[in-house]
Amino acid sequence: MAEEKENIQFQLTHALIEQVENLVEQQNNKELQKLLKEFHYADIAEILDELNLEDAMYVIKLLDSETTSDILMELDEDNREKVLKNLSAKEIAEEVEELDTDDAADIIAELPIERQQEVISNIEDIEHRAEIKELLAYDEDTAGGLMAKELVKVYDTWTVAGCLRRIRGQAEEVTRVHSVYVVDKQEKLVGRLSLKDLIVAKNDQKIADIYISNVDFVNVHDDAEEVVKIMQKYDLEAIPVVDDNHTLLGRITIDDIVDVMKEEAEEDYLLAAGITSDVEHDDSIWELTKARLPWLLIGMFGGIGAASIINGFSDAMLKYPALLMFIPLIQATAGNVGVQSSAIVVQGLANNSIDGKIFSRLLKEFALGLVNGIAIAAIVLLISHFIFQTSYLESITICVALITVIIMAALIGTFIPIFLDKKGVDAAVATGPFITTSNDIFGIFIYFLIAKLILGF
Amino acid sequence: MAEEKENIQFQLTHALIEQVENLVEQQNNKELQKLLKEFHYADIAEILDELNLEDAMYVIKLLDSETTSDILMELDEDNREKVLKNLSAKEIAEEVEELDTDDAADIIAELPIERQQEVISNIEDIEHRAEIKELLAYDEDTAGGLMAKELVKVYDTWTVAGCLRRIRGQAEEVTRVHSVYVVDKQEKLVGRLSLKDLIVAKNDQKIADIYISNVDFVNVHDDAEEVVKIMQKYDLEAIPVVDDNHTLLGRITIDDIVDVMKEEAEEDYLLAAGITSDVEHDDSIWELTKARLPWLLIGMFGGIGAASIINGFSDAMLKYPALLMFIPLIQATAGNVGVQSSAIVVQGLANNSIDGKIFSRLLKEFALGLVNGIAIAAIVLLISHFIFQTSYLESITICVALITVIIMAALIGTFIPIFLDKKGVDAAVATGPFITTSNDIFGIFIYFLIAKLILGF
Repeated sequence: MAEEKENIQFQLTHALIEQVENLVEQQNNKELQKLLKEFHYADIAEILDELNLEDAMYVIKLLDSETTSDILMELDEDNREKVLKNLSAKEIAEEVEELDTDDAADIIAELPIERQQEVISNIEDIEHRAEIKELLAYDEDTAGGLMAKELVKVYDTWTVAGCLRRIRGQAEEVTRVHSVYVVDKQEKLVGRLSLKDLIVAKNDQKIADIYISNVDFVNVHDDAEEVVKIMQKYDLEAIPVVDDNHTLLGRITIDDIVDVMKEEAEEDYLLAAGITSDVEHDDSIWELTKARLPWLLIGMFGGIGAASIINGFSDAMLKYPALLMFIPLIQATAGNVGVQSSAIVVQGLANNSIDGKIFSRLLKEFALGLVNGIAIAAIVLLISHFIFQTSYLESITICVALITVIIMAALIGTFIPIFLDKKGVDAAVATGPFITTSNDIFGIFIYFLIAKLILGF
Repeated sequence: MAEEKENIQFQLTHALIEQVENLVEQQNNKELQKLLKEFHYADIAEILDELNLEDAMYVIKLLDSETTSDILMELDEDNREKVLKNLSAKEIAEEVEELDTDDAADIIAELPIERQQEVISNIEDIEHRAEIKELLAYDEDTAGGLMAKELVKVYDTWTVAGCLRRIRGQAEEVTRVHSVYVVDKQEKLVGRLSLKDLIVAKNDQKIADIYISNVDFVNVHDDAEEVVKIMQKYDLEAIPVVDDNHTLLGRITIDDIVDVMKEEAEEDYLLAAGITSDVEHDDSIWELTKARLPWLLIGMFGGIGAASIINGFSDAMLKYPALLMFIPLIQATAGNVGVQSSAIVVQGLANNSIDGKIFSRLLKEFALGLVNGIAIAAIVLLISHFIFQTSYLESITICVALITVIIMAALIGTFIPIFLDKKGVDAAVATGPFITTSNDIFGIFIYFLIAKLILGF
């Protein structure tokens, strides 16, 4: 029975890292093993993430492969890549033997193609090898890419007592038993049972009499995001995966879903801030530039567009220089409103809580823009008039432009994500720099247009 | 045994909603019950969210309280509030009797204080009532606010056979058994067992000989966010909750954590876009204004600040009008870089992957800003010179200002969240409008300052 450690109080301190570094330097294997034995593998991974590669490799070679395989899964992706490069195909195969099929496939998928083959052929357990190969064939963003082959399966013709006996055998290799899946002779999924149901049932009852026939499932080719939504909506802790013939292929557990959710949330968050691809603060400057520069260039072209508009109205500029002072205000407000509106729509789309009624949504944003616009314009009216002493007409121009720009920005921010979503594009790209930039240009253009109408230059 | 429905193919269509509406209008209870029986409670909740209150109440009164209590939990918060208003205290108490203690306490906590007392006194099951009252006393953002009282508990002195017998009794009222918790005579948590362990063990073994003594746990007063981090890091599906004396009080399950994670991610996403509090696109205009206007006002004051700066440099404006054209470019770039830098730091802080090394992070952002700045400045140099025909010195001014502003924005965007975090403020407020606004002002100020240095006005 694997012992799990109590780790609530684990603190990654500089002192601890130094202690490990010193023990590695002294090659004091005994003390090192004694120290690390105290920690959960997730904590050891945190320690290794802070060591240099040489020290980390020393620790990995020191520990047994049951522990190191779990540690490998928890390492930072960049660090795992480096560690794997320093292990032979045979050593990686040994780690992989200790892992569940889904984790094993994930690790192997991270290797260069030619090494993948080498590692797979070094896996001794033939069944494990075949299952990992099967999983590697699925796209990582599908149910097949998330599922594990480990599950507890019983036939509908068995009795409860027979079942419990067989489960004792199968359960040894399944880390957590959420549900027992019931299949017919053709291996087709027909129902499920919880361990609780089995314990509560009488020994001589037939599985066919007690199983729950309406079982949720996903198809192996279903989208990972779809699986997340289903498991979340129906509060499932595991879901069986079937092929088109309804044959039971594997199962997906909630901990995999939690990881997918976390990754998705992080990606959306960064995307909204104008950062594509899954970078982290400790990635290289080159990686970070690749993720950030494209969005800055979009913003740059927006700025150039705004410059052209101002250039086009240069006569007016000389007549009403006061108007120029308020360009940053118009631009900032348009940007902020646009980002707010688009973020709330993107959120609604992600939750499936926005239906087809585009028109009523736009109407609401119009009303909201009007309320916010009037509030802000009123304050700006007072400030511009009393502090900057703009003329009566100039003040009116600024206020009308502000209200119009806020409404326009709200409508654009609402419309673009809904439009992209209808076209099958991920609406999440439509917040942040994308919206800000288009609103910058529109905002400044509207500003000058209204100035022209009111001041008549 | 509760039957769960197969719902993967559920689609909320207008036709389905109309069908329900028609059956309600005709008061065709038999057909309505037959239709709804097909659906999972989460799906029925989706249907009810689309009906008007009167129709929704009709359906709720029609269904049995076992189903409606689950439906209630899944309804949109606003709709649930309305439905609860239309139920008597006794009716709510009946729904609450069907729910697990954590859900029951959540529902009651949403009621006005005076109704809470009324509902609680209408709960017939004395133990359930006492447990709900206990849970209501905890802050909703703590482990106590998340936990349920339902759990399966055994004493370390029992045998496996005795245990299985007792578990059959306790398990009837626990929806899902993740772990069996082992306590000593003083009800103190001493270990855990999985059902799998029990099934695999021999009947005459003592619990004391097979339980796992190192069990993860949280204190009832621990922060909900802390609980999420622990369960995620250690891949736990349930965690026991203890008081300061280590007495076992309840347990938190992964599905509650999934909900907390989702809420947190949504809040952070909206906060980064300048929307405080948990609003949704279908909230009232007043609710939305309250969540959005404050951030727009921050942006407005930033715009006014920028206007003051431009006003202060008004002599220069008249001498070098070309500089004014590029204000939007400077501002947009400063804003975009600032948001990117802050988002990546906020993400790193949330993941605990940023350590104390502020200086090395700032140095990296400096380098990154330099790379991005030179790339963008080079393009702008060509465009400004050849398209806008700015003078040699003006072009140089714009480019030097761009590079400086990008570096400054990156540093400010990095520094502010780290600083706020050190001061114990949630760093997530520091992206979006807050960073954009401060970078607007700094950016424009730096721009004019550099212009003054180079052009010497």
